[in-house]
Amino acid sequence: MQQAHTGARTGDRIAFDPLVELLTAILVRHGANRHVAGIIARNCAMCERDGCTSHGIFRMAGYVSSLDCGWVDGTAVPVIEDAAPAYCRVDAKNGFAQPALELARKTAVEKARHTGLAAIAIRGSHHLSALWPDVEPFAGDGLIAFSVVNSFRCTVPHGGDSPLFGTNPVAFAVPRQGEEPLVFDMATSAIPNGDVQIAARAGQQLPGGVAVDANGAPTTDPDAVLNGGALLTFGGHKGSALSMMVELLAAGLTGGHFSHEFDWSGHDGAQTPHTGQFVLLIDPQHAGGRPFGDRVETLIKDMRFAGVQRLPADRRYRNRRRAEQQGIHIGVEERARLDALLEG
Amino acid sequence: MQQAHTGARTGDRIAFDPLVELLTAILVRHGANRHVAGIIARNCAMCERDGCTSHGIFRMAGYVSSLDCGWVDGTAVPVIEDAAPAYCRVDAKNGFAQPALELARKTAVEKARHTGLAAIAIRGSHHLSALWPDVEPFAGDGLIAFSVVNSFRCTVPHGGDSPLFGTNPVAFAVPRQGEEPLVFDMATSAIPNGDVQIAARAGQQLPGGVAVDANGAPTTDPDAVLNGGALLTFGGHKGSALSMMVELLAAGLTGGHFSHEFDWSGHDGAQTPHTGQFVLLIDPQHAGGRPFGDRVETLIKDMRFAGVQRLPADRRYRNRRRAEQQGIHIGVEERARLDALLEG
Repeated sequence: MQQAHTGARTGDRIAFDPLVELLTAILVRHGANRHVAGIIARNCAMCERDGCTSHGIFRMAGYVSSLDCGWVDGTAVPVIEDAAPAYCRVDAKNGFAQPALELARKTAVEKARHTGLAAIAIRGSHHLSALWPDVEPFAGDGLIAFSVVNSFRCTVPHGGDSPLFGTNPVAFAVPRQGEEPLVFDMATSAIPNGDVQIAARAGQQLPGGVAVDANGAPTTDPDAVLNGGALLTFGGHKGSALSMMVELLAAGLTGGHFSHEFDWSGHDGAQTPHTGQFVLLIDPQHAGGRPFGDRVETLIKDMRFAGVQRLPADRRYRNRRRAEQQGIHIGVEERARLDALLEG
Repeated sequence: MQQAHTGARTGDRIAFDPLVELLTAILVRHGANRHVAGIIARNCAMCERDGCTSHGIFRMAGYVSSLDCGWVDGTAVPVIEDAAPAYCRVDAKNGFAQPALELARKTAVEKARHTGLAAIAIRGSHHLSALWPDVEPFAGDGLIAFSVVNSFRCTVPHGGDSPLFGTNPVAFAVPRQGEEPLVFDMATSAIPNGDVQIAARAGQQLPGGVAVDANGAPTTDPDAVLNGGALLTFGGHKGSALSMMVELLAAGLTGGHFSHEFDWSGHDGAQTPHTGQFVLLIDPQHAGGRPFGDRVETLIKDMRFAGVQRLPADRRYRNRRRAEQQGIHIGVEERARLDALLEG
């Protein structure tokens, strides 16, 4: 199995497909079946490729330790339930969320094209990645996609005194004419957890006003946040209300766990939140009137006229194009960590 | 017509129904038909009753001047189009958004119960009120409701140098067991426009970091905002991304105007934004598993345990109960303004 990506080992840049192969091999080595491993590896490689490093190969250790300790089932076979003309549910069966979403993709797209809307309600799922890889492909198919996923207890609700919510991101994607989709993906916590972990590893401080320590006092020390501290919501009570909405849709509605409900204390190494995910699709073909694609271009043109230099996702697409030309940079230490995961 | 609410003129408190009658009479006096006037009057009285004063009787002058100058059609008959099993469109025909939503209510609720979801896409509509009155009744019917409405060019996109977006609120409501729905309604601008107008009238300063003057410099002077200045989005780039989402759903998808597209310069007195509105309904009966209502109560209980004293909408419900017992307080000056609108 190691032979398959020997070619990728020369230098510090690796092409996308060999990286997916390497990550797939690591996940298979740690108990995932080839189908599941391939989906997670591709997702992870996409994040690395697009410069979304907090959800790229940095996460592989967490995937591996979660598999090793039996917290997440890398061989789970998700089950889809066709609940109503515009609504399907998926029980991920304690597996990853992405294969559950993949299972529902075709059914949901057909529902959206027929009824105008579709919901995919995923429960019993583990999601450790960014959310934009889940919505962007639907926009590539001409649909509007909105998704929320809850995570693990690490964020204090506005007005509260202890953590309850997860980082609880919201992602949204719309198709564009002849361009990559317009996509945003934002944590409703003031910063994402991945940034705290990366700052801790790099020995850097956090910005002010985003986190508290174990005593509830404001802190900029990432280690203080990771050791019993917590994040705050972005934008005060407004971000907190959105985070609550994420809990209600991703868990309350799907049948998954709220971010504070699951107990991974008995699984040393567990890092994948065991919660739920909600995806909404809208087919703009039913909108009538002027084509939606024209309207998106009008708004973007006028945003640029109002001085907006960079759209959400612009940086990811720029990184993507560079990676397609030059390969994906993997540092020597990162590469050594991946090799260790492949052996160990 | 004035006789009908003579009883309400004693003292400075008025019951809900007489207030609705008074406001209806004012709107009819200025050209709305009785059906439209009744819906807007009731909406406006609900805001006043619940202590949402920036959208209460304070707005009557704006409704009246917009009718008087022919900017909004108070006799418009909205037209509903049944576009797909989960999707309906309403052309408000240059009338108010609330009668258009009322027209679609029954159809949309039936769609949601059957397909699991429903969209109401309203275009050619004028919305000058809060958004919670639009979503709360759906939650009262056991549905989850989400709505966005765009407004008028007054908010600078993050990274931009001039206003483009509206205040662009997002509202969300879920049913509760034996309690009033859990509802939030938030501007994606750092503060709502109504608060700027109220601060200007009261001679008060705005908080820092929410607005800029006509030169793009930070200001706390509400008059500087109203005279060529602009609002900022809440939470920086995140609030801005949400505001962009509101434009894309409420206008781009519905066929309404973006906040910066309509020109009311030829209509002196025009105050009602001529845009669109998007409403999404989800029927949690299709969720399967544990009843959604139980899950909502669990989350609320645990939020209280995490120290959250006040839920979104708690203050509105408290004001509502007080108004039901004691009537709605109307100051002498406010009453004089209403009486002048009724006469003039």
